[in-house]
Amino acid sequence: MKEVSKLIDFRPDIKVVDATLRDGGLVNDFRFSEEFIKELYTANLRSGVDYMEFGYKADKEMFDVDKFGPCKFCDEDFIHSIVGENNTDLKIAVMADVGRCNYKQDIVDRSNSAIDLIRVATYLTTIPTAVDMIEDAHKKGYETSCNIMAISNGRESDIKAALDIIGRSPVDVIYIVDSYGSLYPEQIQRMSAFFGEFAEKYNKKLGIHAHNNLQLAFANTIEAVGDGVDWLDATYMSMGRGAGNCAMELLLSFLKNPKYNVYPVIRFIEHQMTKLRQQGVVWGYDLQYLMTGILNQHPRSAISFTKEKRDDYAEFYKEIIAQD
Amino acid sequence: MKEVSKLIDFRPDIKVVDATLRDGGLVNDFRFSEEFIKELYTANLRSGVDYMEFGYKADKEMFDVDKFGPCKFCDEDFIHSIVGENNTDLKIAVMADVGRCNYKQDIVDRSNSAIDLIRVATYLTTIPTAVDMIEDAHKKGYETSCNIMAISNGRESDIKAALDIIGRSPVDVIYIVDSYGSLYPEQIQRMSAFFGEFAEKYNKKLGIHAHNNLQLAFANTIEAVGDGVDWLDATYMSMGRGAGNCAMELLLSFLKNPKYNVYPVIRFIEHQMTKLRQQGVVWGYDLQYLMTGILNQHPRSAISFTKEKRDDYAEFYKEIIAQD
Repeated sequence: MKEVSKLIDFRPDIKVVDATLRDGGLVNDFRFSEEFIKELYTANLRSGVDYMEFGYKADKEMFDVDKFGPCKFCDEDFIHSIVGENNTDLKIAVMADVGRCNYKQDIVDRSNSAIDLIRVATYLTTIPTAVDMIEDAHKKGYETSCNIMAISNGRESDIKAALDIIGRSPVDVIYIVDSYGSLYPEQIQRMSAFFGEFAEKYNKKLGIHAHNNLQLAFANTIEAVGDGVDWLDATYMSMGRGAGNCAMELLLSFLKNPKYNVYPVIRFIEHQMTKLRQQGVVWGYDLQYLMTGILNQHPRSAISFTKEKRDDYAEFYKEIIAQD
Repeated sequence: MKEVSKLIDFRPDIKVVDATLRDGGLVNDFRFSEEFIKELYTANLRSGVDYMEFGYKADKEMFDVDKFGPCKFCDEDFIHSIVGENNTDLKIAVMADVGRCNYKQDIVDRSNSAIDLIRVATYLTTIPTAVDMIEDAHKKGYETSCNIMAISNGRESDIKAALDIIGRSPVDVIYIVDSYGSLYPEQIQRMSAFFGEFAEKYNKKLGIHAHNNLQLAFANTIEAVGDGVDWLDATYMSMGRGAGNCAMELLLSFLKNPKYNVYPVIRFIEHQMTKLRQQGVVWGYDLQYLMTGILNQHPRSAISFTKEKRDDYAEFYKEIIAQD
């Protein structure tokens, strides 16, 4: 049983990462207004958030710039237009997906960049490329993290092998990513211990990125806090793909470090997030996401169900159990 | 750390209690259609739910029968009209509130009743009356449980004294009730151990009734399962006062006992619950409930905020922190 003091005191190593523009951008093709992004930057500054993820470094030869907002590509000019020289304590992050990022060309030296942290996202099958991306970013002067996705379907022996390879890379933080939102807190506890052995061996920090399919994104994140995981992803009002993520407003209400303050988050939600909802942008927990979560499936079928505005949940359930 | 086997195997002592009509009734003055109640009974039968709570045994001298649906009073005729002789494995429960139930008169001998279980709800300040109600129901032949409400504000020494008194009563089950939805899983774990000492000493079962203010109703319920709590309250689609309860669809998806089946729950939600939502019945997690939860306050101010259709969350936050 964890100590009472853990809920009363705080751990200064905790870092909160706002992933609203990146994971949230997946539900509106990154079409955020400039006002939205600027206000979010201010809200993060005021609430004590440690890192703000601006989006992806997507390859423009693969993705049409006219079909997405600027957070899909995170050009230096775009980030500078929001943050200026960013002489603040809030650091800037972007995500670079294995196979979808021309990293050698599109990620410039940190000395010429507004970005502080490159987050490399990989599946278990693409670890060597992830390591190449980490080394490239590290040489250019960036902090780096590695998000190993879809681990709920990964075999322990494969994850072990991946952690040994990534452990030997210069990466700073290794993330536990519950891509399908299918893990229970007890499993997060075991996963944290499992990842923790490698983090200790290779002197890395651990992070967690949770999804809310089973209404457990926040519960899993605070379970991880109790298990020694320091880097915590959250999004305002849980905005994110499918069932969304751990809610920033819940996370900052929970954390006891006096530098965090939930009030600017509440104000931002009132000003900007409710507007997005009214415009018809849809995300968040619903029955179809519960079903893919329980079945440990990718949420793509549930996302289609949502887009088609279907409400025949029982029929959908029969469709997806047939896919197993 | 809990054993892996606990997530793979199941504990046959678990009982699932459907509290939809009772806790859900608090948000629509118990105005459920006869069709709704009959379909819910069938769904509970088919999904393997153990107990179905029909509502309250409210004193008709205190509450106007014209202002509420029949689940507020749970007359024997009403329950019989739904369940007939109820020759099934599904047992019938009602709640009796200390101070709001004329139990000596309104609760008849079990031999003449459709009811199996009387759930006595009490605050820490009214334990002796709760015990009198438990003894009365026990003598009349009922199973009994005792829900000690608002314990997140109770002092450990007071809860200890209450558990010693209730422990000596003939009650079968003692409930941990997170009335304000303000407890974290770590606290549920400690609370379960705390209650567990008395349950063992007096040979009682433990139950949990959670609220979803912090999106933790399900997480807290499954935490309790891992801590030896056997009786689990849930409601369809989380329907319940304020932020609602642990969702039946999540709970039955989690439990591994082959007698449970989530499909009838999904069907019922599709047929009946979404209709309620469309009729304007409002419940469930929202920012105002997060705020009262975090501050460990009764949700009444958040319920008013919801009823008044306010959306000035930041202003509300300032109002309620001033109440502390």
